[in-house]
Amino acid sequence: MTDLLEPLIRGDRRALSRAITLIESTRADHRARAVELLSRLPDRQALRIGLSGTPGVGKSTFIEAFGLMLTGQGLKVAVLAVDPSSARSGGSILGDKTRMEHLSRDPNAFIRPTPSSAELGGVARRTREAVRLCEAAGYDVVLIETVGVGQSETLVAEMSDLFVLLLAPAGGDELQGVKRGIMEMADLILVNKADGDLLATARRTVADYAGALRLLRKRAQDPAGFPKALPVSATTGEGLDQAWAEMQALMAWRRGQGHFDASRAAQARHWFMAELRAGLLARLDRPEVKAWLQQLGDAVASGQIAPGAAAAEVLDHLDAHD
Amino acid sequence: MTDLLEPLIRGDRRALSRAITLIESTRADHRARAVELLSRLPDRQALRIGLSGTPGVGKSTFIEAFGLMLTGQGLKVAVLAVDPSSARSGGSILGDKTRMEHLSRDPNAFIRPTPSSAELGGVARRTREAVRLCEAAGYDVVLIETVGVGQSETLVAEMSDLFVLLLAPAGGDELQGVKRGIMEMADLILVNKADGDLLATARRTVADYAGALRLLRKRAQDPAGFPKALPVSATTGEGLDQAWAEMQALMAWRRGQGHFDASRAAQARHWFMAELRAGLLARLDRPEVKAWLQQLGDAVASGQIAPGAAAAEVLDHLDAHD
Repeated sequence: MTDLLEPLIRGDRRALSRAITLIESTRADHRARAVELLSRLPDRQALRIGLSGTPGVGKSTFIEAFGLMLTGQGLKVAVLAVDPSSARSGGSILGDKTRMEHLSRDPNAFIRPTPSSAELGGVARRTREAVRLCEAAGYDVVLIETVGVGQSETLVAEMSDLFVLLLAPAGGDELQGVKRGIMEMADLILVNKADGDLLATARRTVADYAGALRLLRKRAQDPAGFPKALPVSATTGEGLDQAWAEMQALMAWRRGQGHFDASRAAQARHWFMAELRAGLLARLDRPEVKAWLQQLGDAVASGQIAPGAAAAEVLDHLDAHD
Repeated sequence: MTDLLEPLIRGDRRALSRAITLIESTRADHRARAVELLSRLPDRQALRIGLSGTPGVGKSTFIEAFGLMLTGQGLKVAVLAVDPSSARSGGSILGDKTRMEHLSRDPNAFIRPTPSSAELGGVARRTREAVRLCEAAGYDVVLIETVGVGQSETLVAEMSDLFVLLLAPAGGDELQGVKRGIMEMADLILVNKADGDLLATARRTVADYAGALRLLRKRAQDPAGFPKALPVSATTGEGLDQAWAEMQALMAWRRGQGHFDASRAAQARHWFMAELRAGLLARLDRPEVKAWLQQLGDAVASGQIAPGAAAAEVLDHLDAHD
């Protein structure tokens, strides 16, 4: 254990990589070591930024430019990803590091693709634990990237201090495309590609979203003016510094009001219960239990035993033999 | 036990009511008796019809008219309900039997309101078990009513042989209001209020839905022409006999093809696993566990213990002490 903990805390990137591989493993002995390692991490905090955007909005370009701006200020930046499609396909939105060519070569940046071939709940847990490892390794900002579909955004929001929605310039009609639930999670909406021919459209889109955000119910954890919509250009760099300034202002306010700590506490409680439920249900996936459930399922399907009676039988057995 | 089983099988309505009250109870001894009773039921089958419709489409009037038509043909009809709002509010869509004044007085009909004050999963299990009790009591048709919102429709479809969607006449634009997922579950769409001033609109609505249904992917368990849209009028009775004829034709085809039995087998398997998962998670609701989880949750929230470590501690304890 100490062979990983010590270099990890020193900020050694290889140790960080190996530690993440350890928490991603499903082997029982690896899991026990992972829980032990996670229990011994120092209490360092990074700013956890959730970032969502559908393919085509320029998310990689944005992360590259934004990340390089932060490392340029002397900050250490980690990039993680939660990608539900990768969980299905085994592919990964971050598998190809050439997507962020310069950032991936920056010694103050760490980029880690989504763990592949796992279901979304598992990916979420491992990403959350990877965030903790990055914090322990001394990273100042952890960007958690996700694609703008389905429930992965909710999962990422539940492990972030700040949730940023990246959008492309679009006509007013397309405003409908962003679901209300996603809008309500966003602390900051950034309209990317605000440059060249698209500048005017981007500015209109910002105004449209600013209007839509004003219609949402005011949240206790927001200072005046938030959530906010801003134009940025990942290619020219325009607006990135202002976006960062807004994030810092929001975080300073939330820390001052106690919302930052309260949100982290609520998130930790949530993940504890989520993990407990997942752990209980995982008992049904043990090979010997699984084979038995298959047999009992056949008996239920053919009407030899009622579903409730079969379930009671299994529960009794798990009680007796656990 | 025998004091309930024997009169239940004879078709005694009071015994049926008491048996349903037994399966609705959460007391452990009641639950054990319920599982025992359900295991000893004779293997009688009713036609299980799921029926969904939002408030205002005339669902009660339809059930009253359709149910009386069936009892008029010498069939015994039971009406159950799955109402998520009642699970929240403690109220019930079937609490007021005056909604179906004549049917509720018919000796060949049995109407049972949703069990109140329980969460949706629990309501679903108890409704499914109530269906089995109605079958054992000799009912030929079991109507399972739900409101057209949220996941209650999926739950009802998962315990039905046939899923009917009841709609009101509407302009073409409102066709959008029915979610694609609901359309895909429907075997029959009935457009109610096809009478008087609304007749022409109802016919147009039927044509609109017929067109929309044709765009859906063909399902293996459907003969040519299904799913189908038809006009009905619960007030004049027009179209009810044809709707019933279509249901019978569809069921005869599915029985002949083996789809009916295959679907019931898959449903039983599904409910077995659903009940097993619910039973496992229910361990976290035991009072002594709950109090402990609250304490551990506080420790997690204040950062004294990592979420994963806390979850592992609880899982170990449940393993050791179950």
